[in-house]
Amino acid sequence: MSSELHAVPATNETHPIPWEEPPLGNTAVLWRSSLNPIIGRDQLRRSNSIFNSAVVPFGSGFAGVFRIDDTSRTMNIHAGRSADGIDWEIDDQPIAFASDDPRVAEIQETFEHAYDPRVTWLEDRYYVTWCNGYHGPTIGIGYTHDFTTFHQLDNAYLPCNRNGVLFPRRIGGRYLMLSRPSDNGHTPFGDIFCSESPDLIHWGRHRHVMGTRPWSWESTKVGAGPIPIETDEGWLVIYHGVLTSCNGFVYSMGAALLDLDEPWRVIARPNDYLLSPQVPYEQVGDVPNVVFPCAALVDEAADRLTVYYGGADTVTCMAHGRLSELLAFVRS
Amino acid sequence: MSSELHAVPATNETHPIPWEEPPLGNTAVLWRSSLNPIIGRDQLRRSNSIFNSAVVPFGSGFAGVFRIDDTSRTMNIHAGRSADGIDWEIDDQPIAFASDDPRVAEIQETFEHAYDPRVTWLEDRYYVTWCNGYHGPTIGIGYTHDFTTFHQLDNAYLPCNRNGVLFPRRIGGRYLMLSRPSDNGHTPFGDIFCSESPDLIHWGRHRHVMGTRPWSWESTKVGAGPIPIETDEGWLVIYHGVLTSCNGFVYSMGAALLDLDEPWRVIARPNDYLLSPQVPYEQVGDVPNVVFPCAALVDEAADRLTVYYGGADTVTCMAHGRLSELLAFVRS
Amino acid sequence: MSSELHAVPATNETHPIPWEEPPLGNTAVLWRSSLNPIIGRDQLRRSNSIFNSAVVPFGSGFAGVFRIDDTSRTMNIHAGRSADGIDWEIDDQPIAFASDDPRVAEIQETFEHAYDPRVTWLEDRYYVTWCNGYHGPTIGIGYTHDFTTFHQLDNAYLPCNRNGVLFPRRIGGRYLMLSRPSDNGHTPFGDIFCSESPDLIHWGRHRHVMGTRPWSWESTKVGAGPIPIETDEGWLVIYHGVLTSCNGFVYSMGAALLDLDEPWRVIARPNDYLLSPQVPYEQVGDVPNVVFPCAALVDEAADRLTVYYGGADTVTCMAHGRLSELLAFVRS
Amino acid sequence: MSSELHAVPATNETHPIPWEEPPLGNTAVLWRSSLNPIIGRDQLRRSNSIFNSAVVPFGSGFAGVFRIDDTSRTMNIHAGRSADGIDWEIDDQPIAFASDDPRVAEIQETFEHAYDPRVTWLEDRYYVTWCNGYHGPTIGIGYTHDFTTFHQLDNAYLPCNRNGVLFPRRIGGRYLMLSRPSDNGHTPFGDIFCSESPDLIHWGRHRHVMGTRPWSWESTKVGAGPIPIETDEGWLVIYHGVLTSCNGFVYSMGAALLDLDEPWRVIARPNDYLLSPQVPYEQVGDVPNVVFPCAALVDEAADRLTVYYGGADTVTCMAHGRLSELLAFVRS
Amino acid sequence: MSSELHAVPATNETHPIPWEEPPLGNTAVLWRSSLNPIIGRDQLRRSNSIFNSAVVPFGSGFAGVFRIDDTSRTMNIHAGRSADGIDWEIDDQPIAFASDDPRVAEIQETFEHAYDPRVTWLEDRYYVTWCNGYHGPTIGIGYTHDFTTFHQLDNAYLPCNRNGVLFPRRIGGRYLMLSRPSDNGHTPFGDIFCSESPDLIHWGRHRHVMGTRPWSWESTKVGAGPIPIETDEGWLVIYHGVLTSCNGFVYSMGAALLDLDEPWRVIARPNDYLLSPQVPYEQVGDVPNVVFPCAALVDEAADRLTVYYGGADTVTCMAHGRLSELLAFVRS
Amino acid sequence: MSSELHAVPATNETHPIPWEEPPLGNTAVLWRSSLNPIIGRDQLRRSNSIFNSAVVPFGSGFAGVFRIDDTSRTMNIHAGRSADGIDWEIDDQPIAFASDDPRVAEIQETFEHAYDPRVTWLEDRYYVTWCNGYHGPTIGIGYTHDFTTFHQLDNAYLPCNRNGVLFPRRIGGRYLMLSRPSDNGHTPFGDIFCSESPDLIHWGRHRHVMGTRPWSWESTKVGAGPIPIETDEGWLVIYHGVLTSCNGFVYSMGAALLDLDEPWRVIARPNDYLLSPQVPYEQVGDVPNVVFPCAALVDEAADRLTVYYGGADTVTCMAHGRLSELLAFVRS
Repeated sequence: MSSELHAVPATNETHPIPWEEPPLGNTAVLWRSSLNPIIGRDQLRRSNSIFNSAVVPFGSGFAGVFRIDDTSRTMNIHAGRSADGIDWEIDDQPIAFASDDPRVAEIQETFEHAYDPRVTWLEDRYYVTWCNGYHGPTIGIGYTHDFTTFHQLDNAYLPCNRNGVLFPRRIGGRYLMLSRPSDNGHTPFGDIFCSESPDLIHWGRHRHVMGTRPWSWESTKVGAGPIPIETDEGWLVIYHGVLTSCNGFVYSMGAALLDLDEPWRVIARPNDYLLSPQVPYEQVGDVPNVVFPCAALVDEAADRLTVYYGGADTVTCMAHGRLSELLAFVRS
Repeated sequence: MSSELHAVPATNETHPIPWEEPPLGNTAVLWRSSLNPIIGRDQLRRSNSIFNSAVVPFGSGFAGVFRIDDTSRTMNIHAGRSADGIDWEIDDQPIAFASDDPRVAEIQETFEHAYDPRVTWLEDRYYVTWCNGYHGPTIGIGYTHDFTTFHQLDNAYLPCNRNGVLFPRRIGGRYLMLSRPSDNGHTPFGDIFCSESPDLIHWGRHRHVMGTRPWSWESTKVGAGPIPIETDEGWLVIYHGVLTSCNGFVYSMGAALLDLDEPWRVIARPNDYLLSPQVPYEQVGDVPNVVFPCAALVDEAADRLTVYYGGADTVTCMAHGRLSELLAFVRS
Repeated sequence: MSSELHAVPATNETHPIPWEEPPLGNTAVLWRSSLNPIIGRDQLRRSNSIFNSAVVPFGSGFAGVFRIDDTSRTMNIHAGRSADGIDWEIDDQPIAFASDDPRVAEIQETFEHAYDPRVTWLEDRYYVTWCNGYHGPTIGIGYTHDFTTFHQLDNAYLPCNRNGVLFPRRIGGRYLMLSRPSDNGHTPFGDIFCSESPDLIHWGRHRHVMGTRPWSWESTKVGAGPIPIETDEGWLVIYHGVLTSCNGFVYSMGAALLDLDEPWRVIARPNDYLLSPQVPYEQVGDVPNVVFPCAALVDEAADRLTVYYGGADTVTCMAHGRLSELLAFVRS
Repeated sequence: MSSELHAVPATNETHPIPWEEPPLGNTAVLWRSSLNPIIGRDQLRRSNSIFNSAVVPFGSGFAGVFRIDDTSRTMNIHAGRSADGIDWEIDDQPIAFASDDPRVAEIQETFEHAYDPRVTWLEDRYYVTWCNGYHGPTIGIGYTHDFTTFHQLDNAYLPCNRNGVLFPRRIGGRYLMLSRPSDNGHTPFGDIFCSESPDLIHWGRHRHVMGTRPWSWESTKVGAGPIPIETDEGWLVIYHGVLTSCNGFVYSMGAALLDLDEPWRVIARPNDYLLSPQVPYEQVGDVPNVVFPCAALVDEAADRLTVYYGGADTVTCMAHGRLSELLAFVRS
Repeated sequence: MSSELHAVPATNETHPIPWEEPPLGNTAVLWRSSLNPIIGRDQLRRSNSIFNSAVVPFGSGFAGVFRIDDTSRTMNIHAGRSADGIDWEIDDQPIAFASDDPRVAEIQETFEHAYDPRVTWLEDRYYVTWCNGYHGPTIGIGYTHDFTTFHQLDNAYLPCNRNGVLFPRRIGGRYLMLSRPSDNGHTPFGDIFCSESPDLIHWGRHRHVMGTRPWSWESTKVGAGPIPIETDEGWLVIYHGVLTSCNGFVYSMGAALLDLDEPWRVIARPNDYLLSPQVPYEQVGDVPNVVFPCAALVDEAADRLTVYYGGADTVTCMAHGRLSELLAFVRS
Repeated sequence: MSSELHAVPATNETHPIPWEEPPLGNTAVLWRSSLNPIIGRDQLRRSNSIFNSAVVPFGSGFAGVFRIDDTSRTMNIHAGRSADGIDWEIDDQPIAFASDDPRVAEIQETFEHAYDPRVTWLEDRYYVTWCNGYHGPTIGIGYTHDFTTFHQLDNAYLPCNRNGVLFPRRIGGRYLMLSRPSDNGHTPFGDIFCSESPDLIHWGRHRHVMGTRPWSWESTKVGAGPIPIETDEGWLVIYHGVLTSCNGFVYSMGAALLDLDEPWRVIARPNDYLLSPQVPYEQVGDVPNVVFPCAALVDEAADRLTVYYGGADTVTCMAHGRLSELLAFVRS
């Protein structure tokens, strides 16, 4: 286990991450929380579903950005706070992004939709990325210091793109982001790419990281999930992979290890998934058979990892595991 | 609330409509019956599913026309009777339509299928409309005085069409019908139109009433449900809207208000759905994620409304609400 | 040959229909005019293409309604006049339909498109039907006395429909129209139906006339073309049939005979096409491989028939034949 | 009931087939085991799902070949043994096929996948057929004497094919096999054919047995299930039929009777299904709404039949019935 | 050049194969005949198109089997004879296959269609293979001694299959056939396989020969064309490859060399096509952009090769080349 | 006409651009060269087609970068030179890009394909952009001083993207590029976006410029063509628009005017196309019905404009016009 693990800012020393020992006889690398779903679909008065959401340590507890589809099925992102990472108080209103950059107004003229957020501490603030509708889905970027006021930067890429995930520190002086270029619908393809930026506004040096594998749980598309977790051995990436059955997509969760300095190089990628839809809150809902990870909390000292994932595009869930066992699984 | 509310004939003064107070803490406009599904899929010996069915006050109780797919998956409609609107005795054999009109025999030569009925009291009898297969789906029309003998008129439209819903009285001397033109398969489009007829045989003056809305619960198609409910403010229309997820269609229920005299003009249409598939009997079944309303009973004096809807194309369910609150919701 | 042939009004006795003897060695029932295409795509300054057009005897010569797609590819219909049926003077501006019926304004609010017209003399005036865009393609109806002023009636059907073709006289006191219900795109299915009306506004008694035939030149869809030609033996219907090759649709021309009194009953329908795309102006153009008939002129005394058809959705063409031979072909 | 019933070899006289009396009030021909699913998805450490599997009497108990998709979603087949046909011990490793035939190595060079096995006693050994990936899905054939060592023959057909089911004895001196030709994806068509072979290597005399039926539970495709059961009246074939709903395929189970000597001739085929997905373990799983039979055990003396079938492409289930009632159902 | 070249029986020593020297400045391996198309679409009174046809030396001249789609677009095969291989007399009626094998009647009950024939001299007679409709396309086999009387064998394979091409002699005592398994429509995939038979009735030992190549003229499907030509270096196979442009399939002609004893092993396969649609009779017709070879005549002594191919699924064409140059091209 | 027109570097003062007066009676804004196609498909020994190519003034004549698909249908770009812009000498070998930037090697590891180039003089050199295959199509950037040695920069965007077109000068200190994001196939959608870069490596500030228009010649997709031409009134952009007929895409040419300082703002955009496929070399070829502009030469003093465009994805063509008339057309 790495002493260089830096997934979280130093501001949260006090509250442990959510945790639960594995059920008796468990042999899996990750196990589901017995509290699942920790956030139900109707926690807000006008929420249709709360899922695919991002959580980070914040203050003496945790903060998060949540995907909430309301009862008109408009997709938007809301801020929330929690003392223990389990019971969440989520803002009734979506995040209203301000911006110091006058040109950002050009892309804010018409709100289309916002979904599938990720959040990371990076240098001096919390950055949020999300799928931002601007003549098609693309990657929105914003930041906050306090999860109350949010500032928007320009979109990172041209449409169509989804699942933009920032690395939690600069590499070689550059910001890096994983993303999954897509089309403008229920995209039947998708590889993970890595892009670089000097300023979080202009992006280039796009490199292919990893693609799909035929006849597998990830034969249709793959996309990055939580913020990459830095370890001595490389960046630990938890991601979703999709298989197309005769009755639709099945989203499962997997993991891989990327090179620390050139993270578009894959060091290890096992054949097996980590978690696939096998319990009712993952198999039944607005989109059946979806396990979709968007965040992870790590307690390096305790060798603990908690992944937040969406179930069936409807509810928010947690899975726990030992970081050391997960790394062993990825190397296997 | 309107004193001109005329959704039901005067013959039923005695039996109250099915009713249940909302569950504790309910904030929704409609709430599900705790008896759901009130009709199971296998109530008949050869029934595969009983759903998307129509109910009206009749005699001292209620009568209905039920969509029953049998165990060969042939779709047909059956008559039924109930004292309380909850426990139903349904005929084992499908409705056999007779006709005084010799030309109706021309369209009865080959039975294809019959499904998704609606029923209304109109002037002096109960009219039934349904999706009638005749070289493609179109709108069949028939009537009954007693729910025992049924008479068939000619089909209203050319194929392909579904969800034909008569207004419960003439407007401007003409009969009016809502319908949703379609294609001959699992149609990925659909708007609601209004047509007029002097004689229930010839139809014209087709007007567009309302279409889909992008990025919403009704982005793929919309179709009328129960017989429009007349109120002082307009015709209250409860309808289904469909969204296409990456794993198929999701059918939800919504409501709108149409102009009393020119019902192709929409007076009010809120953004939110009324009810979406959120419980197992709506999420799991022959077609997952379907809430499909086909009838409503109204007790104006008691400010009560009960909607009958199909769950997952498998079972028959009820939802209750206050008519005044529903109108407030639609106006919102 | 029938002495009851009434395809044209009595007003044109003077000018013969366009005619050309068959080429040497011809064995086909119909042969192409050596003047083809008689109307080029760019006859008007802003025309992209002129095709699928309708022609009738008028005054001492001929008049017509022409489909013209302009250089923005807007589809519209224009009136035209000709002394000989070959050289046409076509109005630069599309037909502007007036209406005495105030409700027609309701469907004129937004012009979508107008295409594929047919024209017939019926009782006391020339009726025009066309594919009229109103929230999808449907059948527009209008009339003119002089091909200068045109009056619009209400649309005949709900969308989606194309190829509405009126019979040239009432049958059993009713107006009759053939049409081909469709979907809202490049429809991959289509049968011919017959509908009736007491007033040209309300339509019913929809009957299936004829469908596609597998493994044939008409395996994808069929649609009526010119106004049906009355003969002693029945209504002679010239129509288009479509086959789907691996590189798209192929439109050919065929013929059938319908019962005089119940024209939804097919009396004779041969297996062979009459004309398929075999020359460059039919094989190459905006839509390759299209022969699409929309009108026919008949000189009963001379046993002559001239069909007007579109070539490759680009130009207007003629084919000639002997009516007696065509009837023999259809009976074969 | 036939005394010529020969579905099982003479080696198993001792152990009764799994059995359970019908639930109170049952009117169905087949009823589900109260032990369902008898094999869970995660019985092996790396199994994602265990389903669509084949079982035969063996020794003093039963043996089987099981489809197991592992946690990389690789599809493979494993051998297993059971004393009672209910509790199964399944090999952790897939079957490793040896072969005396040197040319079989040519098709073993690259393993693609193996799934949906069937097993039958035929003359002197147990034959296994399965869907074997070789540049597309086709029918693999192998045999075993002991369910420990397995020998592979050459593939029976060209791709693409699935659901190859051997008859349990030669007919007219020839081996016969049912199969369902397909395409290389989630095939939307499929009929049952019968082929003959003198040597189990070369196949010909391919005959169409039965196809789909429109507007029914088997309107998309049909494929053979268990080994045909010989009766005095003909070969009793239990098969799957598929309907396409707007949210995907629905697989149900049906039965038919084939001629004893010319089994491509259908003697009887009722309209109704035997069993359709109606309980959670059939409706929810990796592929919702799947009932897929692959094997049957028959106790002729006791008039008992037990069908093994896959539920939702996830688990293994049993259904029981009276052979005499099943035959009566098929004849009805 | 090989002295073992045996593509033709010994009965034709007298008449040279059709030949034309290359045009001035030609650098291509194959060049088109200046007589193209040698057979027009309307050579028969009811022919819509004559193409994709097979030719062999016969008697003192040549004989052939021709694909003719008639004017109902029924696909059938006709026999023909020619003194010079260029001017053909083709039978007005399709081949009527008799059979000594009583079981062949089982597959002749319903004629669906017959197309794309190949012909080879094999041992003592001329064998014909073609795409034979029997509940889907599959490979029909027949033979003739005189091109007047034809005998039918059983179909070789289960549907769906096309482009069955026999080798002109047994290999290892077995008959061999190339084919291209397909689906039941305008198949978007297709590889070449090789199958073996002891008796031309039962087929097995199916081996993959060659597949498509991405980003090439043969990226969608490949299928064998003329009978393989035996040379010292291997079997020379001329085949079609298909690319999918945004406006449909493009069929070109290529060549490869297969191992003499194990012809499923590819010895040489160049990257370039031999001939692609570049002249009007290949680019324009019932299916634009098709070059489809079905036969080749070889004059080994003169180092000449003439390929017969269909143009645009409409007409029959020839291309000439030097066998030595073609072999050099394939080896390149 | 603007005196600030700077589309070409100062190095070419000597040779006039290709020019031809309009044909008699011409009323079109652009007219075709009578020399078309100026470059045939087989100008190189192994070229299948030469089209969609870019031309600039260079030295005393002209230079260009040409899309050449070779006879394996590999797509690549080649340099060429011409004295008069009409007769071209094109390199037999594709451009081999060197690079001083060591990281460019990372994207050069596997060549996929290169096509549809554009060229512009920008500051001190000629920049080339093209569709560069790197795990999907994206925009490659390179430069040359002499059309002999070419240097590659990093790809501008993530896949999938096509039709990257640089502005010929910096605006607000930034490089700007138009592009058309796509999917990875024959994309059925496409809008024009504008992106900015400080260094030609990192790109951001992506702005939507213009989209499709329903029921028009540009209803499926639009993409920039030649380098924008600077005029007093704005950037004159010539582009392609695509309509989907029932037989495939039709590519036409249009023009619009963009704001000089904020070129994502459209100043003028007429409804009509400039040129659509109407002559054989545009209607017939590897992709029928394609007019695809990639370059323009301007002689401001002479009020002349010559557009280079591909015909039918097969050959290279020219069209001429008066710049003043083109601007008037765009403003209309």
